[in-house]
Amino acid sequence: MTDVAILYFSGYGHTVKQAEALEVGASSIQGTKVDVLRIDENGDLPDVGWDKLKDAKAIVFGSPTYMGGPAWQLKRVADASSKPWFSQEWKNKIAGGFTTSITTNGDKASTISYFVTLAMQHSMVWAGTAVMPANAKANGPDDAGWTGGMTGALAIAPSDASPEEGAAKGDMETARLYGARIAEMAMKLN
Amino acid sequence: MTDVAILYFSGYGHTVKQAEALEVGASSIQGTKVDVLRIDENGDLPDVGWDKLKDAKAIVFGSPTYMGGPAWQLKRVADASSKPWFSQEWKNKIAGGFTTSITTNGDKASTISYFVTLAMQHSMVWAGTAVMPANAKANGPDDAGWTGGMTGALAIAPSDASPEEGAAKGDMETARLYGARIAEMAMKLN
Amino acid sequence: MTDVAILYFSGYGHTVKQAEALEVGASSIQGTKVDVLRIDENGDLPDVGWDKLKDAKAIVFGSPTYMGGPAWQLKRVADASSKPWFSQEWKNKIAGGFTTSITTNGDKASTISYFVTLAMQHSMVWAGTAVMPANAKANGPDDAGWTGGMTGALAIAPSDASPEEGAAKGDMETARLYGARIAEMAMKLN
Amino acid sequence: MTDVAILYFSGYGHTVKQAEALEVGASSIQGTKVDVLRIDENGDLPDVGWDKLKDAKAIVFGSPTYMGGPAWQLKRVADASSKPWFSQEWKNKIAGGFTTSITTNGDKASTISYFVTLAMQHSMVWAGTAVMPANAKANGPDDAGWTGGMTGALAIAPSDASPEEGAAKGDMETARLYGARIAEMAMKLN
Repeated sequence: MTDVAILYFSGYGHTVKQAEALEVGASSIQGTKVDVLRIDENGDLPDVGWDKLKDAKAIVFGSPTYMGGPAWQLKRVADASSKPWFSQEWKNKIAGGFTTSITTNGDKASTISYFVTLAMQHSMVWAGTAVMPANAKANGPDDAGWTGGMTGALAIAPSDASPEEGAAKGDMETARLYGARIAEMAMKLN
Repeated sequence: MTDVAILYFSGYGHTVKQAEALEVGASSIQGTKVDVLRIDENGDLPDVGWDKLKDAKAIVFGSPTYMGGPAWQLKRVADASSKPWFSQEWKNKIAGGFTTSITTNGDKASTISYFVTLAMQHSMVWAGTAVMPANAKANGPDDAGWTGGMTGALAIAPSDASPEEGAAKGDMETARLYGARIAEMAMKLN
Repeated sequence: MTDVAILYFSGYGHTVKQAEALEVGASSIQGTKVDVLRIDENGDLPDVGWDKLKDAKAIVFGSPTYMGGPAWQLKRVADASSKPWFSQEWKNKIAGGFTTSITTNGDKASTISYFVTLAMQHSMVWAGTAVMPANAKANGPDDAGWTGGMTGALAIAPSDASPEEGAAKGDMETARLYGARIAEMAMKLN
Repeated sequence: MTDVAILYFSGYGHTVKQAEALEVGASSIQGTKVDVLRIDENGDLPDVGWDKLKDAKAIVFGSPTYMGGPAWQLKRVADASSKPWFSQEWKNKIAGGFTTSITTNGDKASTISYFVTLAMQHSMVWAGTAVMPANAKANGPDDAGWTGGMTGALAIAPSDASPEEGAAKGDMETARLYGARIAEMAMKLN
């Protein structure tokens, strides 16, 4: 039985870090079973993945932001979700989203906005991060909420940073807090 | 004690119709108290309105789409909501949105998208209409879901239609169903 | 030498109709050479296609709206455009976009909004349809601008309509007018 | 005779800095006359302002991002622009946009996206910054493009920074480069 499913794609490993932090957060809520479903390079998701999505109480969508939106591999799975959409299998599940991109702002908001639209087609219920922005002069990448944007979890990984270097402490903490929130919401609503 | 607050602006009376249908729907859920808060021409909301928003378990935002977004009067109230935002008074309330515009598509999606963003800043939880689109050849304005768009309730009121003429049967039914869904979600989550 | 490139994907043939109307419109501007580049089922574009995009003075992006955004095949080409992006090969070209979906509103705006974001990453210059909405009671699907939405060309093809049945007269006329506008703008700016 | 009109609102003075940098950039293009039109606290724009907008070859919209969108004062002017919209007075003018917010990402993209939608209703032609992102590990707030987002000019001013402190060197340079680009585009297209 899956409670929280983290459905994501990662091209170079940076988004993996965010997914891991979300997993830690969701797993920290007692009694929550988390399943991490990584979409492969061809945009495929095995049947067992679809079964887990059907069972989950919450689905969190994740992808790097490539050329201003989610990677095509993620979109391929989203397009294939027209089947569960048709019978509204995901109705009333909690939804959330996360994205990593190399530029400070970049177009992360475009990716998250797409996830909201997708979730609404599935009649899911969207929960944002609830992590308040850390936006004083003294704040920096080590602080949760420094990257900001409360609709989903955002992370900045510079273009020449390895996944380890790119994973800013604050972004990872935001993802962890978000994972916990999603798990709590999934319990409350179901 | 307010359960569902419908916070909206209407310029010419068409959006009133949508608000009324939402109210009927929300009130149909047993034990739900609905408060309708109409923002005035100057974008003011009396103090008692802010108190009711604080108490509500759900807030539904509504506005005509003017020049591609919510009316400035609605935005003025949204800007003033930086006060409850600061202390996150609206955290975990259910949020929803609705809009009427004169053109078939127009930019209704832009208005609804803004409401989602606003709700996420407040750490609210967004529920869409869950009304499936009625998109076969035989469907028309009399059918719920014909206008489509599941993130919020949409309505089309032609430029030369009175509020009564403009209120298509299907759009009103969509709003009614949405009102009921919001009330149910508010109960579940709180 | 390409002047206007129409780069699009179509799953079932409805978006083909829009592309054809755009082509007719663009070709109607004297001295304009139009190239239509249809992305295949695997999201591939042959090398010659990339060359034509490089040469073009304008690129119009088109896709059905599937699950709230452009089809993954279109997104795959967009992701692959990171190569011309890197050297800003498409800088200052005119950009536009079009989409067909089965629902009246659906999430067409989400697809068009993505195209704008993509175009801006390429430093292109975006031109909308400039077709005023036909939104009086007497208007209907036969009128250009009835579907509305001026950022790109929108079309509605009901879920059970063949491509021929689905191609509303007004939507096709909007696409034709848009094609002409794009061609004129491409001449002016280059 | 106005060539480039900068139409903006600023609440605390931070957005003024961005407007000034844009003005410097636009004025640097030989033969360009720039008019800066600052909207007042009540969302009013004097008649002479509307006349200048009518004359301009380009209009750049600017506002802080408040509660996830443009300030209501800017939206009030946008709503009032339904008059020039009706006769499409702004058709084919170049459009651009800029925003400052206190959070790194915040919802700057939402404000810029609204400006695009507004510009498209007016049948304007949108030009982004064409400033490539500075997203390597060595980059920081002093570099143009560090904040990123190519659809419009973005700036970050921490919540406790004065307008002078808040104006990061890189954001100001981005705005300056954007001003020059807008002026050049306005010449080319008209």
